[in-house]
Amino acid sequence: MEMNEHETFMAEAIRLATENVTNGGGPFGAVIVRNGEIVATGVNRVTPSYDPTAHAEVVAIRNACQKLQTFKLTDCDIYASCEPCPMCLSAIYWAGLRHIYYGGTQQDAADIDFDDHFIYQQIPLQPSERSIPATNIMRQQAQQPFDAWRNKEDKTPY
Amino acid sequence: MEMNEHETFMAEAIRLATENVTNGGGPFGAVIVRNGEIVATGVNRVTPSYDPTAHAEVVAIRNACQKLQTFKLTDCDIYASCEPCPMCLSAIYWAGLRHIYYGGTQQDAADIDFDDHFIYQQIPLQPSERSIPATNIMRQQAQQPFDAWRNKEDKTPY
Repeated sequence: MEMNEHETFMAEAIRLATENVTNGGGPFGAVIVRNGEIVATGVNRVTPSYDPTAHAEVVAIRNACQKLQTFKLTDCDIYASCEPCPMCLSAIYWAGLRHIYYGGTQQDAADIDFDDHFIYQQIPLQPSERSIPATNIMRQQAQQPFDAWRNKEDKTPY
Repeated sequence: MEMNEHETFMAEAIRLATENVTNGGGPFGAVIVRNGEIVATGVNRVTPSYDPTAHAEVVAIRNACQKLQTFKLTDCDIYASCEPCPMCLSAIYWAGLRHIYYGGTQQDAADIDFDDHFIYQQIPLQPSERSIPATNIMRQQAQQPFDAWRNKEDKTPY
């Protein structure tokens, strides 16, 4: 079977995910593409790196931004071997990626006990309704850094 | 005014956030506490580090996990100078933190043009309804890494 460009990049994300299992990581890979070329890749290194944020997509975004020396990837697409979790999806929004291609689904991940459905359910709730309690304190004092930001002339907004 | 323990930790998160503006970062800080002691801190380094994932809470979680050599922070609390965005909130869930204390609110952040409300709105939508298009391809091939995971005997689940 001849693969089109999208399939070629997804096949690479899947290959990286499978290889990463052998290398002691989780079964997830991601590839970031710009102008038809791979800019950076990422694999899930949560347990070997002691980093709960080291999901494949987050790692790929961090690597792509380092390589391109930017914090925005608005002209890039991401190929993820599995549907992004809410953390990765939010990171994709912050980075401004253009298009998401994903292979496995949330359900496929849940079937091997990587279940992010619970987090998807928690995010839209009011803080008081979530399973991790959240308490608002010192709101007035917390305006200090925002005032400093307002008053700073040479800032880099994003 | 004498401060209680929660206020002391929040005051430190706010101080770090203000200091970070001077140091070229965003106006956000976070502190992770275990057994009444600060384990690690984080500040927003998105623009100076070229890392859209370098929000204060994510940085603090990564630092705490490095220090404690773990990928779970189930006996830790986080003090964030501002209410966590969906990426940080998801990272807090993945790390399993116990309690969130936050100073500024989503609205306060929106007032200085750090508006994560849009991402909060996007996460609960179906992929087809979101502003960043998502396309599912090669779902069958994407089971390969999951099969490798199922068959691996010495894996570290999380």
